[in-house]
Parts: sequence; structure tokens; C-alpha cells
Amino acid sequence: MDASEFRRRGKEMVDYVADYMEGIEGRQVYPDVEPGYLRPLIPTTAPQEPDTFEDIINDVEKIIMPGVTHWHSPYFFAYFPTASSYPSMLADMLCGAIGCIGFSWAASPACTELETVMMDWLGKMLQLPEAFLAGNAGEGGGVIQGSASEATLVALLAARTKVTRRLQAASPGLTQAAIMEKLVAYSSDQAHSSVERAGLIGGVKLKAIPSDGKFAMRASALQEALERDKAAGLIPFFVVATLGTTSCCSFDNLLEVGPICIKEDVWLHIDAAYAGSAFICPEFRPLLNGVEFADSFNFNPHKWLLVNFDCSAMWVKKRTDLTGAFKLDPVYLKHSHQDSGLITDYRHWQLPLGRRFRSLKMWFVFRMYGIKGLQAYIRKHVQLSHEFESLVQQDPRFEICAEVTLGLVCFRLKRSKVEKRISENWNERKIYVIPAPWNQAYMWPHVSYPSYPEACDYICSVSHQ
Amino acid sequence: MDASEFRRRGKEMVDYVADYMEGIEGRQVYPDVEPGYLRPLIPTTAPQEPDTFEDIINDVEKIIMPGVTHWHSPYFFAYFPTASSYPSMLADMLCGAIGCIGFSWAASPACTELETVMMDWLGKMLQLPEAFLAGNAGEGGGVIQGSASEATLVALLAARTKVTRRLQAASPGLTQAAIMEKLVAYSSDQAHSSVERAGLIGGVKLKAIPSDGKFAMRASALQEALERDKAAGLIPFFVVATLGTTSCCSFDNLLEVGPICIKEDVWLHIDAAYAGSAFICPEFRPLLNGVEFADSFNFNPHKWLLVNFDCSAMWVKKRTDLTGAFKLDPVYLKHSHQDSGLITDYRHWQLPLGRRFRSLKMWFVFRMYGIKGLQAYIRKHVQLSHEFESLVQQDPRFEICAEVTLGLVCFRLKRSKVEKRISENWNERKIYVIPAPWNQAYMWPHVSYPSYPEACDYICSVSHQ
Repeated sequence: MDASEFRRRGKEMVDYVADYMEGIEGRQVYPDVEPGYLRPLIPTTAPQEPDTFEDIINDVEKIIMPGVTHWHSPYFFAYFPTASSYPSMLADMLCGAIGCIGFSWAASPACTELETVMMDWLGKMLQLPEAFLAGNAGEGGGVIQGSASEATLVALLAARTKVTRRLQAASPGLTQAAIMEKLVAYSSDQAHSSVERAGLIGGVKLKAIPSDGKFAMRASALQEALERDKAAGLIPFFVVATLGTTSCCSFDNLLEVGPICIKEDVWLHIDAAYAGSAFICPEFRPLLNGVEFADSFNFNPHKWLLVNFDCSAMWVKKRTDLTGAFKLDPVYLKHSHQDSGLITDYRHWQLPLGRRFRSLKMWFVFRMYGIKGLQAYIRKHVQLSHEFESLVQQDPRFEICAEVTLGLVCFRLKRSKVEKRISENWNERKIYVIPAPWNQAYMWPHVSYPSYPEACDYICSVSHQ
Repeated sequence: MDASEFRRRGKEMVDYVADYMEGIEGRQVYPDVEPGYLRPLIPTTAPQEPDTFEDIINDVEKIIMPGVTHWHSPYFFAYFPTASSYPSMLADMLCGAIGCIGFSWAASPACTELETVMMDWLGKMLQLPEAFLAGNAGEGGGVIQGSASEATLVALLAARTKVTRRLQAASPGLTQAAIMEKLVAYSSDQAHSSVERAGLIGGVKLKAIPSDGKFAMRASALQEALERDKAAGLIPFFVVATLGTTSCCSFDNLLEVGPICIKEDVWLHIDAAYAGSAFICPEFRPLLNGVEFADSFNFNPHKWLLVNFDCSAMWVKKRTDLTGAFKLDPVYLKHSHQDSGLITDYRHWQLPLGRRFRSLKMWFVFRMYGIKGLQAYIRKHVQLSHEFESLVQQDPRFEICAEVTLGLVCFRLKRSKVEKRISENWNERKIYVIPAPWNQAYMWPHVSYPSYPEACDYICSVSHQ
């Protein structure tokens, strides 16, 4: 395919994309396929000779679309949302064309520098403390990670390195293994499964702190666990506080947890994967109060800020905490500027070496919506969720299970044997929703699998407005 | 921006992309900017009100392009290449529009199933042993990782879990920490820095095996290290063999190393990040002989197989080795099909939870080039590198430092004090090349920084053909 064919096919694809987005309401949100559906529809090997573009685009409708869960359908209420916007798609086209790998400043200075500046823009939108911004001479700054899971893992590894060095400086004879055996990380029992996974990967214990009646981690439970573990000779080194948990969008109490982390000299990481986007609105910013106690903070613009996946925004107060954990400098990646204070080599901030020019998406989205446009988008979602909440409250068959703060509404049928019903009427696939655990039973963040007609009617009545 | 504006702007962007690719030869390959160039060109905060698309696209030329290292310029010879093709860009547009997050089968069946089938297609192109293919009932299979660094880390963590469980089954009293303290991983001294990093992250020792005169890891050196470590009470558990090293594209001797790993019950991971693409040509496939001894194999179609970043292809013989290391199943990610043998939940195969619909890129590229087209592309590159090699050999001022097997030519000036010269004439930015270490001195994979005029002339004479 040469440039002139790309001009033609690219424009056809732009129309295909626009048609898809405009017509998505007419597609069944959750696909009607069984596991293994695709293999019989596709040859068993790649073709020797080229197929045409027409062949392929026809197969998209025939083979791919019937198996797609349409995340941007108005009937999609499962998980948390994933962001999508036209400006972001345009930026991604440009990102693909430039196709640079931004592992160091020299590998593409614009890729690195736009990221640093965009992360400052976004940090200012959130009113993050100055210490998290890179500015011209800051010690902190932001980086785009692929996902909140990676951000948590990176923070945990940085904290592990930091505490190991501190302990080895005090007792030079201590081996890394002897230290790791005693390290303990903490999160609330409502934290995302990726936190447990980070502990597993990092080879350290992770303990779940029982949350309170509002599903929040509080000072007393954390302090108690710390005291017990210290008394047992263990070494607390890392706490993850969640703002906007996956199961019910609850908020750990940062103003209580933060000071404890400072006092105990424990790294505090804040995971606000979903909720973080809301903090650009002054009325929701108080939910972030206490961020000043944290060492690292992360949320996903790719969830709720109109920047297509992947774009997970992470800030640290001390960039040397990250680079200290990961820095290895082979000759083939060195460049003459790298010891300058102005240089950021993002490969030292993340797990993979390679990285795309993802900040273009932020730049396009922030500029084409403006801060006011982004705020209006968030507010609309929150307003819709309160509207749905009040519909649920008006129906005696349902109850609301957790406070509705942002865009997630957790509710349940008041009857028992819910799990059984979940598997009934499976074929009714009008909407797509998922269950979450709740006091030994299930509740639904936006209801369970699209099987339960009463619930469907309610959701649909909102989604049709 | 609504769909109709996207139709217009999207088509403008398609033309911008085509213009960029067609005109890239006219752009200076390495940018003429100093660290910190971008910040003064951009406002200090995001705008309150929306900017127009025209504003942004104008700023792309004014602010972004002057700081871009043009990886797809014909004058770019640095690092390894990164792949780019129009079919891949088209697929990425579709991927952006569908915008699904494929962490589980249910989250978008097509996203998961196309990936499994594409990895089988690619595995067959490489003539991988049957055990690595998923097929209908295989125990192995492929997954798209973001980068070879992640693949190495994932393999190391899976191996760590596997050996830990085996040892704990034999001696139930053993703690994880007691085991980890004794675990040792190995790679050649020519392995990529990401291997050392994987060891660091995984909290295990990594030992570099001295390579032979052809920069290859051989049986004797590996066996010697294993014996020494076992005698010291350590536990060898993981070996990374590299096919196509970063510094000189050398090949570890798989046919020697493989049987040792089998005998010692040590996980063998093969990192063929760059070279792997060449194995689709029968004449280069012998370089992969011995893959049958490996537990996992990885290479980057996003380097040399026309699939845009990111697309790192990883296969394992036993998928349960990966899923066993990472599997955590919170209720909100469960779905009714997940225990079926046909189901793949790729979140258990990788570090992050989220993942894009990257197999679309493979599907478009494999079909629009056909296997023959892809082979022709590889062969053209290898032919060009031999042509350049012979030019270097004809000039008495230069020498070739390592065997030219694929597309990398490592050569050097025969004079000393090369390092000093590297920093001279820095402003001569006609081509972009980087240095690599070589016997206590430097050599250049496609020459060093674009500073040395004689070398530039040679490279340019090839690149202009």
C-alpha cells in the first residue's frame, strides 16, 4: 500500500469509524457468540499472497464485529467506562505516523517534553501540590503509564528499593532477601486486585486492612495492623490508598491515612484510577484532600477523561525514587544530554523500555475540549448517576448499596438467591452490566449481567433519556 | 467534535499523515533542539475554552515536529528499527474506534480470539513447534505483550513461581523469601539491559555468562556457572538466550544451551526481539533451531515485521505456567464462560490488566502483505546490509566488528580515541546512529552519533540508493 492508496483507504476508514460510532446504539452491546466462535471463520494460516483492503474491511463486519463487546454503546454499564473521543483518535493517528519510541529524551525530544508538560497541565487541573509538578526545576513530575496496575507496581518497586537501601545503609550486613522477607505492604480490603498482584510480583507480603461501614480504610484499622506487624518484627513500607474503589467507588480516608504514613516513614501511593478525572471539578476536588501526604498518585484519563486507552497518569514527588529503582544505563541508550537537569529519560520511570507518543492524545483532548468542556462532561455523568439513583430509590424492589458520589451506582434486588437469577435469562442481552461482591452477596455496579428484566428496564429508562 | 467534524478532520489527518510519510526524507532526522525547548512554546496551563483543530494542527508543525527524532526517515540508523506500515495504521484507527479493553474473553471475545488465532498464524510462519500453538486444544499459545522487556519479566516471574512451588512441595517448611534468596537467573553478557532489570524487579540474582569470540553464549560457560552456583547452594531457575543481541546481533547457541536447561530443569526463555521477524524466511529459520527446548519465546513484530508499536509476540508451551503465576479472580472480573477450555483470559498472561485490540494490526498487515510480501521485505533489508558491509570492507579506514547476519552492520574506525570524535561535529545531523560497546572501545551498529563525516558519507551512499 503506497501513500496514495493510504489516502483513499484512510478516508474510507475514517468514514467507517464515524459510521460505527454513529450507529453503535443499533448494535447488540454484548455479543451473541460462544467461546471459539472466531477460529472457524478464519483461515488456519496467513495468506501467501496479499488480500485486498476490501476483503479485510468486509471481514471486519462479518468476523470481528459479531464478537465485539461494544464498550461505547449507550447500553454498556459494565466495569468502569473506558474513554473515547474523536480528538483522541485524531491524535492517535498522528502518534502512529510519527511512530517514535520515546524511551529517552534523545530518542524523540518532543515525545518526552510534551509528556512532561502535559502532566504538569493535568496536575494543575487537579490542583496537585507543587511538589508533584516537574516545572523547570522540580524534583517531582508526571509520567504516562500504560495502566493503573503498572503504576501501582512501579510505586511498590520504588518503595521496596528505597526502604531496602535505607535499611542496608543502617545495617550493611543485611541482605536484600532478609529485608524482603519482612516487608509488608497494605491496602484496604476494597482495593483493586492489581494491588494484590503487585505484592505478588514484588515478592512482598500484602495485607488487606478491613474497611469501615462506608467501605473506607481508616486510621484505626491501619494503625492497628502496623503496630501488630512491627511488634512481630515485620517492616511496613508501602500503603496503597484507593480513591474510588472498583466495587463501590468508596474513598479511603486520606486525611487519616496520610499522616500515619508520614509518621511511620512508609511510602503512600494513591490509586484513583476511575475517580481521579472528577477532581478537575472544584466541587469534587475535596475528595483528593490529603494527596499532599502521598509519595505517588495515579489515575486513568483513559477511563473518564476522554483520552483513549492507554493513558494512565502517575506523579511522584521525588523522581529519583523511581529512577533510582530502575536505572540501568547501557552504552547504546546513553546520550550526551542525559546528565542535564532538564532531561527526563522516561525509560527509568516505567517497566517496559519502549513507549509511544501518548501525550499527543492529552494535548489534543485538553485543547479541543478546554477545561470547561471536560468539567461539563464529568458533571453530566455524575448528574445522570444521581438521576438513576433516585429512580432506584423510588422502587421498593431495589436498594442502593453504597453512597453515590460520582458515576457509579451500586444497587441490588432486595430478594435473595440473586446469584441464581444472574445466570437466568442470559440471552436477554439488551444491556451489559456486571456484579460485584457485597456483604457475602452480590450487588451490581450498574446491575449484574444483562439478565434481569426488571433491572434492565430501569437502566434502559435512563440510557434512553 | 461530532461525527461529521470527525469525518472532515479525520480525512485531513489522513492527508497529513501521508504527507508526513512522503516528505520525511526532507526533514532533519535528528532534531536541532536543546533540552527544555518545548516548554516555552506552550502555555503553562490547559485552556479554559476549546482551541480549534486548526490551531492544534498548526502547532504540530511549529512545536512538535521540530523536536521529533524521525524514526522512519531514510537517514535513521540508530537503535533497532521500529515498524511502521499503512495497513497497520489503518488497523490502529479501527482499534481506537472499537476502544474495547480486552482483559477477559467476555470483555470483548473478538479481541481475545483474534489474538489467539493471529499468534497461531505467526507461530506457523516461524515454524514454531506445535507445542507453542494454541490450536483448538493446545496447552500452549501466544499473547501480545507491550514490549520484549515485559515478556522477559513475565517469563521470569512465571519461572520464579514455578520453581518456588516445586521446592515448597518438596519441603513444605521453606518460605518464599528463603527460596528467592537462592534463586539465580542467567543470560549472556550481551543480553539486553531489560534482562538485568527483570532480575532486579523479580528480586533474584542475575548472572552474566561470558560470551565467546562471536559474542554467543555457549554450553561450557553456562554449565560452569551452573555447577559453581549449585555447589554454593544456590538454585539456578531461569536462563535467557538471546537471538540477535542489541549490541551486535549475535546469536546464543540454542542447540547447546537448550539441552542444559532441560537437564537442569531450568526455564529457558528466548529473547529474539529484533531478529525474530527474519525467521519467517526459510533461509533464516535455522537461526531458531533449538527453540524446541524453550519454555517461552518472544520477538517484536513491532521492530521488523511492519506492525506498528506496540506488538511484542510471546509464546509459551504451557499457558498454565503464566496463568498460575498471575491469576487472581475478583468477582467483578469473573464471567460465566471462564472455566471453559476454549476460553483465554489474557489478563492472567501479562502485567497490566487493560489491553487494546492489537491483533487487528497483525491481521491487517499479514493479509495485506501476504507471507511472500513480508519475506520480501525482510530479504531486502538483509541484502542492503550486506551491500553496506561490502562498502565498509573495501575501505581500509574501517573494519567490520561482528558477523553481519541480518540487518545490523557493526563497524568501526580503526583509529583510537573514537569516543572523543563522537562528541565532535555534533551539529552535523545528517544521519542518526548510535554507538555500542566493543572490547573496551566503541563500535557502531550503523555507526555512532551522526558526527563522523567519513562514516556519514558511507551510510548516506547506501541510504540514497
